[in-house]
Amino acid sequence: MNAPSRPVRRPLPQRLIDTLAAGFGTRFTTAEAVRAHHGHDESHFPDALPDAVVFPHGTEEVAAIVAACREHGVPVIPYGVGSSLEGHILAIHGGVSVDFSEMNKVLAVHTEDMDAVVQPGVTRKQLNAELRGTGLFFPLDPGADASLGGMAATRASGTNAVRYGTMRENVLGLTAVLADGRVIRSGGRARKSSSGYDLTRLLVGSEGTLGLITELIVRLHPLPEALSAATCTFPDVDAAVRTVIQTIQLGVPVARIELLDALTVTAINRYSKTTLREAPMLFFEFHGSPAGVEEQAATVQDIAREHGGLDFEWATRPEERSRLWQARHDTYFACLNLKPGCRGVTTDVCVPISRLAEAIAGTREDIAASGLVAPIVGHVGDGNFHTVILVNPDDEAEIERAEALNRRIVERALALDGTCTGEHGIGIGKQDFLLAEHGAAAVDAMRLIKRALDPDNLLNPGKVVPGF
Amino acid sequence: MNAPSRPVRRPLPQRLIDTLAAGFGTRFTTAEAVRAHHGHDESHFPDALPDAVVFPHGTEEVAAIVAACREHGVPVIPYGVGSSLEGHILAIHGGVSVDFSEMNKVLAVHTEDMDAVVQPGVTRKQLNAELRGTGLFFPLDPGADASLGGMAATRASGTNAVRYGTMRENVLGLTAVLADGRVIRSGGRARKSSSGYDLTRLLVGSEGTLGLITELIVRLHPLPEALSAATCTFPDVDAAVRTVIQTIQLGVPVARIELLDALTVTAINRYSKTTLREAPMLFFEFHGSPAGVEEQAATVQDIAREHGGLDFEWATRPEERSRLWQARHDTYFACLNLKPGCRGVTTDVCVPISRLAEAIAGTREDIAASGLVAPIVGHVGDGNFHTVILVNPDDEAEIERAEALNRRIVERALALDGTCTGEHGIGIGKQDFLLAEHGAAAVDAMRLIKRALDPDNLLNPGKVVPGF
Repeated sequence: MNAPSRPVRRPLPQRLIDTLAAGFGTRFTTAEAVRAHHGHDESHFPDALPDAVVFPHGTEEVAAIVAACREHGVPVIPYGVGSSLEGHILAIHGGVSVDFSEMNKVLAVHTEDMDAVVQPGVTRKQLNAELRGTGLFFPLDPGADASLGGMAATRASGTNAVRYGTMRENVLGLTAVLADGRVIRSGGRARKSSSGYDLTRLLVGSEGTLGLITELIVRLHPLPEALSAATCTFPDVDAAVRTVIQTIQLGVPVARIELLDALTVTAINRYSKTTLREAPMLFFEFHGSPAGVEEQAATVQDIAREHGGLDFEWATRPEERSRLWQARHDTYFACLNLKPGCRGVTTDVCVPISRLAEAIAGTREDIAASGLVAPIVGHVGDGNFHTVILVNPDDEAEIERAEALNRRIVERALALDGTCTGEHGIGIGKQDFLLAEHGAAAVDAMRLIKRALDPDNLLNPGKVVPGF
Repeated sequence: MNAPSRPVRRPLPQRLIDTLAAGFGTRFTTAEAVRAHHGHDESHFPDALPDAVVFPHGTEEVAAIVAACREHGVPVIPYGVGSSLEGHILAIHGGVSVDFSEMNKVLAVHTEDMDAVVQPGVTRKQLNAELRGTGLFFPLDPGADASLGGMAATRASGTNAVRYGTMRENVLGLTAVLADGRVIRSGGRARKSSSGYDLTRLLVGSEGTLGLITELIVRLHPLPEALSAATCTFPDVDAAVRTVIQTIQLGVPVARIELLDALTVTAINRYSKTTLREAPMLFFEFHGSPAGVEEQAATVQDIAREHGGLDFEWATRPEERSRLWQARHDTYFACLNLKPGCRGVTTDVCVPISRLAEAIAGTREDIAASGLVAPIVGHVGDGNFHTVILVNPDDEAEIERAEALNRRIVERALALDGTCTGEHGIGIGKQDFLLAEHGAAAVDAMRLIKRALDPDNLLNPGKVVPGF
């Protein structure tokens, strides 16, 4: 099918500026500093500033922004906290950045039903802070303290997905503003439904290209009665990976099982002032009843021992555990810190667990051959792992080598029945991979959907679907 | 938006008959008896025969059928085993029924990754029979031995969904033929992915209106090490419901928790020759390690006792357990058997668990006021329950009263933040409810998607989206 016409970058029409300024007062700005803040994310892609930024307070205001921008053919780009890794929030065709940070209320917590209704600017840590005392928590945890709207838009997950699923499983329903300015409500608080097309799952992962999420209903989970965390080092990465595979295949309901190669552990020790043994390592966490946790831990220790794992080091006190997981969450910044001034080209493949050892071994060879520095870390219980390829942002040749390395890693993952992105999304960086992974017919179906819902290509143009 | 033009029912063009007869030989037929078999499901809706039936053997053949039908503007209706409850497979605008019963191969079982690749005609029991010896099973179990393609198309679930999820969570990927005859592959074997729009979840639950599913990748689960089942009777339905609510809210990972009212138990005893105590009853099943199952059972027994539950009766031997669950699965037919010659108008609401007691109590009052016979049964761990309203198919006034009762039950469920259908789908029977539940803007979005992917409205026309 024909590619749509790309939005042409031109100055914001004065009438649109007037409309938004009149409607939003100081919550609308074209100030350079604010635009600059909204023109880059955590990826290595060049900054691309929006022409203006607006801070809505509710669904109706978002609908008004979209309607006004549509009237003038101006792109609209949703913005959470800017922690995306594939250029999702870059205003590559200009337009208005819609910053959701002032839509950050937890609107309702239904403890009995274990769900919460939140605005998209609520961050994962904020939600958990507000849940204190309810006996419930929201487990999904990308490294950054991301906004829930952004997490839904990119179908994010984190270290707990092996047990609790991703945003695909944990968003029960949502409110969104479509390109025509209309507000839809999809899904709902019932735990299951066969009621029509699954617009919730269509919007989750659509990266702001089909609608702007203005409210979410998320699943909560009971805080486990018992909880224990441990680290275990291995003679080599392969032994650690084999431990993971066997654990998953035995059906042990681990809550977290994370791989760090020796270089990543070194990076963490330096950045987070920890004293972990600098060897390939697994981080574990077990959730359940006291007896259940003990049973899981015993099983996994047996498996680890078989593969040459050294003794488990337990983080039993809550503050030790928090410190351990905070260090894990800061891995990305710890890795960047290995090479001052660098940026990260992050890979994010995910493969069936039986292919994980092969995928990681091949990736290690590729990294060695590339001559680049690229620590490996991953949510290996899902078959998902990352490398953070450290590049000098001013060295185009190095960036090209990093992209070539990423391409090789993705090609291998696809050959192993995997996906080019487990949790970061497509953004502007992986559109070729989208096509390689799904084929032309499926990508054309995505195009038809995009065109049907956003005929003028104004919602986050240039992201996800090639040619838009 | 404007409603699309409805397909006009007219005789199949001779050229299409010739094409399909030439391509499929005896696997294509216009014989009355075969058409009659494909012209009714388990609902109370009047029969609507297709003009022809074809039995493809693979994706390419399905693509050829769709392409041929499209050339002649003829509807295509996918057919599994005909166990749907909302008229999904009725050829209300005529057309060609595509019967998937000869696409019934399990193409691959990846035991290490706990997934299977199947053709859509594979039934749930067949898959489990083929999994024997692998240590894995496919838990989803609508009452009927439905085909997996049909289950995906209706986003079905069953008694295990409270623990294992629905088809939404258990279909990892699929192959489908779109209206233009092109074949798409979506999702895949990786456990998670952020790679583009979630076409898998869009097709799951689309009831054959967006594409014909020709292959599925489904999740498998480890057979629990230990497993026990029990029944428990209660002084009244409300006490049973309160037991369910507390069990779920405590986070006990029950595998099954099913409510049957006294009338349903009577129906089961008569139909399945069981000797269950004829009182409101819960059926339980616990899965886990031996210690875990014991722990779960002890917790739930304590909860039941608090609510006046009598002692648990355990079905410990596998054959006792199978008999119990087979009786539960035959409930629909057992209910129909209460009134010879009747048909069932099945309700299927699902509400947040905190509203379940209110929803069921109100439903019981409505049934009493209606004067109709309508046993209540449900997957109450999810907040999902059914009534089977028994009607004389020749008594239009009685059918109208049954539909009015259904409407009241749905209206209450929607008022309680629930859905009009937990697992049966919209079909031809619930399109008004779809609109009431999601609102005009969301239903319009569904229409835009339908029109984008099936502009000539040839895939299962008249189902799901009002006006198509």
